[in-house]
Amino acid sequence: YEEVQEDFLKYAHLPARTKDSYQVDIGCNIEFLEEIPSAIVHGAEGIGLYRTEFIYINRDHLPTEEEHFTHYRQVVGIEGLAWATIRTFDLGGDKFTSDPKLAKEMNPQLGLRAIRFCLKEVEQFKVQLRAIIRASAFGKLRIMFPMVSGIEEIREAKRIFNDVMRDLIEEDVPIGRDIEIGVMIEVPSAGIVAEELAREVDFFSIGTNDLIQYVLAIDRINERVGYLYEPLHPAVLRLIRHITRAGHSNGIRVAMCGEMAGEPVYALILLGLELDELSMNPLGIPRMKKIIQNSTLQESRELLDKVLKLHSATEIRDYVEHYMRQRFPEEFPGNEQ
Amino acid sequence: YEEVQEDFLKYAHLPARTKDSYQVDIGCNIEFLEEIPSAIVHGAEGIGLYRTEFIYINRDHLPTEEEHFTHYRQVVGIEGLAWATIRTFDLGGDKFTSDPKLAKEMNPQLGLRAIRFCLKEVEQFKVQLRAIIRASAFGKLRIMFPMVSGIEEIREAKRIFNDVMRDLIEEDVPIGRDIEIGVMIEVPSAGIVAEELAREVDFFSIGTNDLIQYVLAIDRINERVGYLYEPLHPAVLRLIRHITRAGHSNGIRVAMCGEMAGEPVYALILLGLELDELSMNPLGIPRMKKIIQNSTLQESRELLDKVLKLHSATEIRDYVEHYMRQRFPEEFPGNEQ
Ligand SMILES: [Mg+2]
Ligand SMILES: [Mg+2]
Repeated sequence: YEEVQEDFLKYAHLPARTKDSYQVDIGCNIEFLEEIPSAIVHGAEGIGLYRTEFIYINRDHLPTEEEHFTHYRQVVGIEGLAWATIRTFDLGGDKFTSDPKLAKEMNPQLGLRAIRFCLKEVEQFKVQLRAIIRASAFGKLRIMFPMVSGIEEIREAKRIFNDVMRDLIEEDVPIGRDIEIGVMIEVPSAGIVAEELAREVDFFSIGTNDLIQYVLAIDRINERVGYLYEPLHPAVLRLIRHITRAGHSNGIRVAMCGEMAGEPVYALILLGLELDELSMNPLGIPRMKKIIQNSTLQESRELLDKVLKLHSATEIRDYVEHYMRQRFPEEFPGNEQ
Repeated sequence: YEEVQEDFLKYAHLPARTKDSYQVDIGCNIEFLEEIPSAIVHGAEGIGLYRTEFIYINRDHLPTEEEHFTHYRQVVGIEGLAWATIRTFDLGGDKFTSDPKLAKEMNPQLGLRAIRFCLKEVEQFKVQLRAIIRASAFGKLRIMFPMVSGIEEIREAKRIFNDVMRDLIEEDVPIGRDIEIGVMIEVPSAGIVAEELAREVDFFSIGTNDLIQYVLAIDRINERVGYLYEPLHPAVLRLIRHITRAGHSNGIRVAMCGEMAGEPVYALILLGLELDELSMNPLGIPRMKKIIQNSTLQESRELLDKVLKLHSATEIRDYVEHYMRQRFPEEFPGNEQ
């Protein structure tokens, strides 16, 4: 037991730096404040995704600015966590209000959700933005907008953000001056026009769960098509590479916060994609760090280049799994034929 | 009236050839045999999309091979129509069977539909394929598979197709020897891996209605997000250009059969994309042909190159609409500020 514990701490509290000195920031995805102590113990360096939907659901009135603020100020400026990335409201309108007009959609995953809903319900959106911006007075804060499909939506979201910021400054409310604004890349069109989006924001955060669903046109919680969900589909990898390159050629950070970012078997692929930050379930951090610390950027790039030349998802999966089992037999002890 | 009639015939029954001799094949999208005479009168040169779903719906038993065949043999070898492209079953399983297991999905547009369903219900798929292949004895037939997301699915569909073809040959059933196999490009991943798919098939048919929906992650029949549906979104245009280039660099035909293909205001954009075939509602053919006959490939390429440099859907729409109103004032008499 002691040995395991020692091993665990050895990897978890060192940076995720490869043997050839490429360092990835490691964030955690959280929803509740109670998850933070465990995230720190497991080696999180920041909060890469703070989900805010819980504030809205299962209640009989819309949350007030103070209710929002109470939560947000507790996720910034935490000792041991260098940043907090707060994602704005990311549900359909049915979770936001009891208005029956907004309740039923035939394809809710393709409906009025997230930033689309917020850009229609601007007053309520502003309540959330005021609380987030106020929290920036307490530590390093990043804000990101989900489900953006193109440049018009991010410009509109930024315009509202700037209005709110201006109001707060006029009211002499203390705010931080270095809030970074980001966009989640999870709608395929956003990935395709990443070059343009990169010029509008300070960072990208690739939301692979949704990006993969939309790119492959599947609802992964539908068990009849879940078999098609494949982070290693060549279309997914090519699009992610296009996104990271567009971000870097415009000098901005590229994070990933979907489940793919926390899967150890993808560790070298993610390094090869040159992501700047991986944000994951805290429990997955020690193992991911251990693999990264024992890898090189060089081999990761070579692996990625190799699999990007393969034609099918099956070939890529077989190749990556085989490679990782050979390379890290202790971590991936599965049978090798 | 006579003048209109004359004008109409003049354009409708000449090829869609630009002044610099780039010719596009013009197909029609149909569902019922009764639509064919009108399609010919309006200038259709072939059937670019024959929808087969009506054979399955509103009935109490699965269609037999003979029922399928009765329909299919009537769309091939029609005097005045040079080809018929039959699309295989393109609905969710709920339309195919009364099995309640298959009925309800939370996001049916992202569910078990089209080729996904057929690859699971292989015996029923084979019934349709047998009937389609038998119809090929009567004229030029193309078959295409909807909702393919990557290379595995098209290989699997082709394998089943070849099994059926082999059976028919062994049974000495007369069949045509030059059936072309195509894939609809309407799932974003298929567009991204178009290079690989092109090596597997004889032609592409871009289904813009679904492609646009998935690329932008919207359900366009949901009136709350319909405002986001935009064929001129830069992500859509870039992806289509990627698809046409991948097709042409592999020497295959690239058709388009979504509504975008029949919208006169997109005529020059479609020419610039160098589509080989546009298939549309028959009523739209005369006007589309007239515009193409009065255009050049050269100006179309220049227009496309110009708009591909613009950053937002709004800018592109404004530019294209303005251009078309200036260029074809009779066709687009809208107010110009
Ligand atoms: Mg998402
Ligand atoms: Mg379709």
